[in-house]
Amino acid sequence: MPSQFDPASGTRDFLAADVEQREHAFAVIRSVAARYGFEPLQTPAFERLDVLLGKYGDEGDKLVFKILRRGEHEASGEADLALRYDMTVPLARVAAAYGSQLPVPYKRYAIGPVWRADRPGKDRYREFVQCDLDTLGSASVLADAEALCAQHDALAELGLREFRIQLNSRRVLAGLLEAFGVPAEIGTQVLISLDKLDKMAPADVAAELTGRGLDSAQAGDLVGILAAPDAAERLRAALKQSETGAAGLDEVDSVLSLVAGQIPAERIEFTPRMVRGLSYYTGPIWELVAPGIAGSIGSGGRYDHLIEALGGPDVPGTGASIGVERILAMLPGAAARSRLDVAVTVLGAQFAGRAFRLAAAARSAGLRASVYLGGSGKLGRQLKWASDSGARWCLIYGEKEDQAGLVTVRDMETGDQAEVAPDEVAGYLGAAAARTAAN
Amino acid sequence: MPSQFDPASGTRDFLAADVEQREHAFAVIRSVAARYGFEPLQTPAFERLDVLLGKYGDEGDKLVFKILRRGEHEASGEADLALRYDMTVPLARVAAAYGSQLPVPYKRYAIGPVWRADRPGKDRYREFVQCDLDTLGSASVLADAEALCAQHDALAELGLREFRIQLNSRRVLAGLLEAFGVPAEIGTQVLISLDKLDKMAPADVAAELTGRGLDSAQAGDLVGILAAPDAAERLRAALKQSETGAAGLDEVDSVLSLVAGQIPAERIEFTPRMVRGLSYYTGPIWELVAPGIAGSIGSGGRYDHLIEALGGPDVPGTGASIGVERILAMLPGAAARSRLDVAVTVLGAQFAGRAFRLAAAARSAGLRASVYLGGSGKLGRQLKWASDSGARWCLIYGEKEDQAGLVTVRDMETGDQAEVAPDEVAGYLGAAAARTAAN
Repeated sequence: MPSQFDPASGTRDFLAADVEQREHAFAVIRSVAARYGFEPLQTPAFERLDVLLGKYGDEGDKLVFKILRRGEHEASGEADLALRYDMTVPLARVAAAYGSQLPVPYKRYAIGPVWRADRPGKDRYREFVQCDLDTLGSASVLADAEALCAQHDALAELGLREFRIQLNSRRVLAGLLEAFGVPAEIGTQVLISLDKLDKMAPADVAAELTGRGLDSAQAGDLVGILAAPDAAERLRAALKQSETGAAGLDEVDSVLSLVAGQIPAERIEFTPRMVRGLSYYTGPIWELVAPGIAGSIGSGGRYDHLIEALGGPDVPGTGASIGVERILAMLPGAAARSRLDVAVTVLGAQFAGRAFRLAAAARSAGLRASVYLGGSGKLGRQLKWASDSGARWCLIYGEKEDQAGLVTVRDMETGDQAEVAPDEVAGYLGAAAARTAAN
Repeated sequence: MPSQFDPASGTRDFLAADVEQREHAFAVIRSVAARYGFEPLQTPAFERLDVLLGKYGDEGDKLVFKILRRGEHEASGEADLALRYDMTVPLARVAAAYGSQLPVPYKRYAIGPVWRADRPGKDRYREFVQCDLDTLGSASVLADAEALCAQHDALAELGLREFRIQLNSRRVLAGLLEAFGVPAEIGTQVLISLDKLDKMAPADVAAELTGRGLDSAQAGDLVGILAAPDAAERLRAALKQSETGAAGLDEVDSVLSLVAGQIPAERIEFTPRMVRGLSYYTGPIWELVAPGIAGSIGSGGRYDHLIEALGGPDVPGTGASIGVERILAMLPGAAARSRLDVAVTVLGAQFAGRAFRLAAAARSAGLRASVYLGGSGKLGRQLKWASDSGARWCLIYGEKEDQAGLVTVRDMETGDQAEVAPDEVAGYLGAAAARTAAN
């Protein structure tokens, strides 16, 4: 039941364990991207409204969060800014703004939130992280294959094992339409229908195609070949009739051969019926799917005219997008990690300074340490706090310890206690932590 | 001159070197915070409008970026959401929402952007990062001292040497007003005037005080004692007359004694005339200042009723805020780092697969590597690209290497070349990189 203290609809608060799991995933992706020579880019959360509007189609425009003008203009009810909807429009703006300062090709990655006023639902949020790797300024299929390898490596390093890459090319699709004599004006609609072959029965798809204007023989042939187990092989033969189709096949084969040493063969497959929804792709396209997960966990492709269409310079582009929110949802839940390694008692105000120095000593050994900040002077209560915080060691310093000039170091797991001189606490804990880590 | 490709007014794009410098600073702060047992919290970029409005005073409310309602409600010109203005109101909401799931005390840090519709200026932005450490649920001065130590350590680890901590207490200020018989109704105004003693001549401050309704003897006494070089000592004597003042002195002395082992004595000083602008503080307060920097680079204090006033539960609170944007501006500029360690030539399409595998080998040795993605087949052009990308090594594989079955590894710094078997490239580069790192 929503409460007045919940975050705004479609957004989430992330407490410690979730933040740590998410940040770890982002760090893995950053590290893979850097290893491939992609460099980071961060753009603001909002852009001027005119930079965003008109770039995502009518449906997309409706999902843009718009920011009201301020001060005397607020009453106008007009917006002049809008929250980032994706990472691509800001990339186009940056390519235009910093052209000559950017390396050629410009290989950049961006990981950060985007905002869309979609209806919130299970695993669908209004604030979610996008993670894109793109290369601007290279027309080479090597750039496509490189982006795909980096994306693959990131998923593998995130711990995903069971995923597959469906590879195709826009030119294969164009060649397919050509080879089957599909009229150009219904081409896109035909492709959208064919893309449903993984969820709909072939006969239903064929019926949809005739509804779109294809004659029934054409529709039957198309569906027959694409739904066949050896679709890729049968298509290869058909596509060689079309110049565009043959170029598309070359493209697909180049990518397959380039990635061969790095992506296991069973993970990637030429999938001729895979149609990426967006129409701006011009070359190789791919989607990453995982068993039991509806939709894709990553995608990519070449988009040679998109950056210009979005207001940037006329540069070829290619890139991959990692569905990091979906992937996070697939990974084991965030484990509640201990908050502390070392808890330090404060058994009376006169020992507080000593407690502070002991905590500092533990930190100097690289451990997470805190003194007791509650109001109880009782050892039992403070030990419970130490235990609740997950601390492996508790440093006890009270009357008895003060008289002996020694600190009691309690191992919270075994209950063992040792008496250690204050100056030796850092060394003692460092050695104990090293033993624990080695076990 | 602003261009249509600039980011929106008051916001910034961060290219690679800046992102890396900023992320490094945030990582240092995160690491210090974790060592003190603070845990991360991330809240959404926007909150419901009613969560934010009315929390920052009239002036603050005007600076809140409001988000227009969507769909059929857009035409109303009304807002229902607003961008986060600080990290404290979201903390109050989280404390209310997740109360029993949170540890007691709840020690959290938050690092992330906030948005304020201020007039942009030099080093004043509409999107900037705030970095807060707070402890909710502890009334102990130990929590104040701990937050201060964590803040101090973060600044020291960020590389700052020349900064000082001005320490005071709200109760010292209340005791001061009491001891000098300042009428309660002008107390706040008097404190605001006294806070100007570091920028205004004592006589001018005294004049301002009489203007505010203090009689001139009182004004002269107050300014005389606070402007004196031994202000702290003279005040101690005066404050002992006031119960509140004496409690405030105790508080200050407790903090000084607790931090003694960790903060060098010359870096922290009881500064009775230091008044933190915000009225919600209830105990110790502090500001971090650096020579030549106007304003503070950090601040903090105890605010025992603020969380409740902001709509959260009635818990005592204390915390520190690190002025990370100001500190970043003080640090040496971001150095342009090399983009690659290893550049791999592609001297003909027939060698592209080999180039891909060589780049993968370099990455397996932990190095950043990329193949040449441009259109030239000329070695000279590709070596220029390798040099521009800052690569230390260039792997060359063309006709000659293919016949010999060996890769040419060129050290771009020395010009030395070695012939290495493809299978041994990873090992060769790993060893070379280790030697480079050791030098």
